[in-house]
Amino acid sequence: MTDPVEFDTVSPPDEPSREAALTRHERLTKPRGSLGRLERLGAWLAACQGQCPPRPLERARIVVFAGDHGVAARGVSAYPSEVTAQMVANFRAGGAAINVLAASVGAQVRVVDLAVDSDAADADAADAGDTAGSAYRVRRSSGSIDAEDALTDDETHAALAAGRAIADEEVDAGADLLVAGDMGIGNTTAAAVLVAALTGTEPVAVVGRGTGIDDATWMRKTAAIRDALRRAKPVTAEPVALLRTVAGADITAMAGFLAQAAVRRTPVVLDGVVSGAAALVAEELVPGARAWWVAGHRSPEPAHALVLEQLDLDPLLDMAMRLGEGTGATAAIPLLSMSVRVLAEMATFDEAGISGPTGP
Amino acid sequence: MTDPVEFDTVSPPDEPSREAALTRHERLTKPRGSLGRLERLGAWLAACQGQCPPRPLERARIVVFAGDHGVAARGVSAYPSEVTAQMVANFRAGGAAINVLAASVGAQVRVVDLAVDSDAADADAADAGDTAGSAYRVRRSSGSIDAEDALTDDETHAALAAGRAIADEEVDAGADLLVAGDMGIGNTTAAAVLVAALTGTEPVAVVGRGTGIDDATWMRKTAAIRDALRRAKPVTAEPVALLRTVAGADITAMAGFLAQAAVRRTPVVLDGVVSGAAALVAEELVPGARAWWVAGHRSPEPAHALVLEQLDLDPLLDMAMRLGEGTGATAAIPLLSMSVRVLAEMATFDEAGISGPTGP
Repeated sequence: MTDPVEFDTVSPPDEPSREAALTRHERLTKPRGSLGRLERLGAWLAACQGQCPPRPLERARIVVFAGDHGVAARGVSAYPSEVTAQMVANFRAGGAAINVLAASVGAQVRVVDLAVDSDAADADAADAGDTAGSAYRVRRSSGSIDAEDALTDDETHAALAAGRAIADEEVDAGADLLVAGDMGIGNTTAAAVLVAALTGTEPVAVVGRGTGIDDATWMRKTAAIRDALRRAKPVTAEPVALLRTVAGADITAMAGFLAQAAVRRTPVVLDGVVSGAAALVAEELVPGARAWWVAGHRSPEPAHALVLEQLDLDPLLDMAMRLGEGTGATAAIPLLSMSVRVLAEMATFDEAGISGPTGP
Repeated sequence: MTDPVEFDTVSPPDEPSREAALTRHERLTKPRGSLGRLERLGAWLAACQGQCPPRPLERARIVVFAGDHGVAARGVSAYPSEVTAQMVANFRAGGAAINVLAASVGAQVRVVDLAVDSDAADADAADAGDTAGSAYRVRRSSGSIDAEDALTDDETHAALAAGRAIADEEVDAGADLLVAGDMGIGNTTAAAVLVAALTGTEPVAVVGRGTGIDDATWMRKTAAIRDALRRAKPVTAEPVALLRTVAGADITAMAGFLAQAAVRRTPVVLDGVVSGAAALVAEELVPGARAWWVAGHRSPEPAHALVLEQLDLDPLLDMAMRLGEGTGATAAIPLLSMSVRVLAEMATFDEAGISGPTGP
């Protein structure tokens, strides 16, 4: 039996470094506050790093948590489950959207198979040259959450431990910014249930179009969410039990990853509704974790708006992106890089010999 | 006497290339439409380039149009006019916000002194190593637009010709994306007058806080805008006369630059209220130019919202940036780069051997 997973407590980002950054911004050669959100973003990263000016971001890492969902058999997605394994192969070949966006912003992608519905042998084969790929595989797919638990207790602990270990590996290897991406047919159904459970929302208010479903699929998805939510209700206040009941190994690992990243004082850019659902659970696991997160974008999925409200996060981008994989978060990374460089590289009024505002 | 400046007509971006990009997006390994705005952005750049997939953006250029404004003597800004020349020196030393943002996105900055209120000899000295810097200097500052014309007819033509020549130089040198940035104490006052004149808006509805002014300064700025708008009204339908009356050499050159960039079929990222005001005039000079523009961001300046509405542009970012210099536009450049790379580098469903959506 796998031991229950314990997390250390989360400490907040360093307030003096944030203050130092905001003070420094007043001395840089621009009107006070004129870089708007970019100033607060840089101050947040200074606080996360505990130094001002902050170091340039040099090792942003995107971890894609892949897993299938038994509930997909209820016909809740526009795509068949086999697409999950096919997309994992596509990530490893570099052909997916997240590969291209990551390359464009200088970040690296790591794909971890937690519960893809394929033979483990296939996963191992696909992992050639990517040794970390299937070492964390917990099981194949998940229970259909409208009728049964997604995972056993042991699987839940194993998935949480996997997420925690992956965060440790990334931080130990020097990651200075992390993104949790998702891949799994049916995962927005599980995410919607988690969001509904943790925000006290009716099923119909959290059901989105996912990857693009028709009306009949939407009705099946709503019914599945309703049934799963009924099963989730008794364990809403117990995050680990909630993950076991309705999450699946991929989202459970993602929650462990987000929790441990905060424990390890590493800033994270959240993506859309799946990473948002995992974030809601992570905040329950380790209260205060949200201080280490910024919302990369606003997704059109209705449950995502609930996540942002609950975590009190204001997204950086609003581009109607609804792909997952970490794409919305990754698209926002250049803004974080700029916010850091502004603090580190701009001249002060004194250095540049520039007059300040005229007196009142 | 300087001859009046003529512009060729603007032809629209290539519609077949846009269609090809949208069709290609349906074959890439992601749900249809799931990259949202990024898909339309890439299709627009494909149309601008006239090819699909579009070429990666490799030579983005930011031209900062610097000039002082006589109206600054009315006390409409938080900063004294001498800051314009000091900031031009700061740009050339690489210490300003636009330098840092440009470096962060791999773009280059060019600063052109159109009418800085300093000795031309100083400008020439500062231009050592930057030969294009003051070759286009039209005059020193401008007339105070609440009481007199900003420019003479000759100066207006010279400034328009300067902007046109700068656009030609940049396009001939291979620029594949352009930004028009601004620097000039008092320039948001002139911009607000242009926007009010071209959108039929009352003065009080266009007056913003610029670089951050107090209430007394706001009242002086509103009075100056009211008086200048009264002078602008008779020439609202004549763009060149309007520029002469209330713009100044920097904004006039910027209008010529934006017009010629569209004539030369080169995409432009618009910045905030100053580049927006110049864009409104450029659209009058060469109707159809706006098809070559994307709005980089939404500025908190009230006149900027009027610009976006009039040009029917939906900004990419909304970060409460109000610095000018081209910073808001430059912050959006990574999104454009990503949109192009997605089209060029993502695998198709066929290439990756991935199943499409299940049938209805």
